[in-house]
Amino acid sequence: MPGKPFALSVKVMIQDENGRYLLLKRSASSKANAGKWDLPGGKIEPSESFDKALLREVSEETGLAITLKHVAGTAESELPAVKVIYLILEGRLDTGNVILSSEHEEFAWVERNELPGMDLPEQFIPFIRQYSQKAVP
Amino acid sequence: MPGKPFALSVKVMIQDENGRYLLLKRSASSKANAGKWDLPGGKIEPSESFDKALLREVSEETGLAITLKHVAGTAESELPAVKVIYLILEGRLDTGNVILSSEHEEFAWVERNELPGMDLPEQFIPFIRQYSQKAVP
Repeated sequence: MPGKPFALSVKVMIQDENGRYLLLKRSASSKANAGKWDLPGGKIEPSESFDKALLREVSEETGLAITLKHVAGTAESELPAVKVIYLILEGRLDTGNVILSSEHEEFAWVERNELPGMDLPEQFIPFIRQYSQKAVP
Repeated sequence: MPGKPFALSVKVMIQDENGRYLLLKRSASSKANAGKWDLPGGKIEPSESFDKALLREVSEETGLAITLKHVAGTAESELPAVKVIYLILEGRLDTGNVILSSEHEEFAWVERNELPGMDLPEQFIPFIRQYSQKAVP
């Protein structure tokens, strides 16, 4: 009994030296979740490892170099033709200033306790609610 | 600043028609976690999607056909040369009786509230503790 096909997307909670997290505001012209505050990251290309894909997406979307640290959690989104599973990592900012691509129109460094108040895509709300309540390591 | 390389492994909580979960006891001769109760699943081959990899591993390890449903959570294991991230799904048994490979020497269908009492590999203990406390959908 084959179910709906799955797709894997990788996202990252990037922390700066002050412990704040980077969110990216999706362009008003985005096909999905226009104007919402998104996590950096995206789809994995065929034959690309998830960590390479994530570093590439972060570089394309923000120009930043980061180091991936730990796994942070998951999210899920049921689209008409595919079920997207999000693997969410934690990363640390290494160097650079944010330079946005046309995909996003704004960025913000957000305190952990302010994360749940941001207007996020619906599929990330359960994750962010749980994540923001976790004790900081 | 490149960190330790990552590897992605996929695991699954397979439920039977009575809501019990399948665990597999690793062979006494296993290089790692010998004799521990493991979740079905394993490594993703190059250019293999995570869901195909998981169905293949389940078939190889148990002979079972399953349907993948939702994402269940994550786990992490720091090995000397690599950091393994586990993406854990939920699945439903379709058909078949368990036929073990040489990798495992026993299997058990376990009630949700009995999961935390099983002797699991250390990296799955936080996930199982949290998972067993979740309300059943």
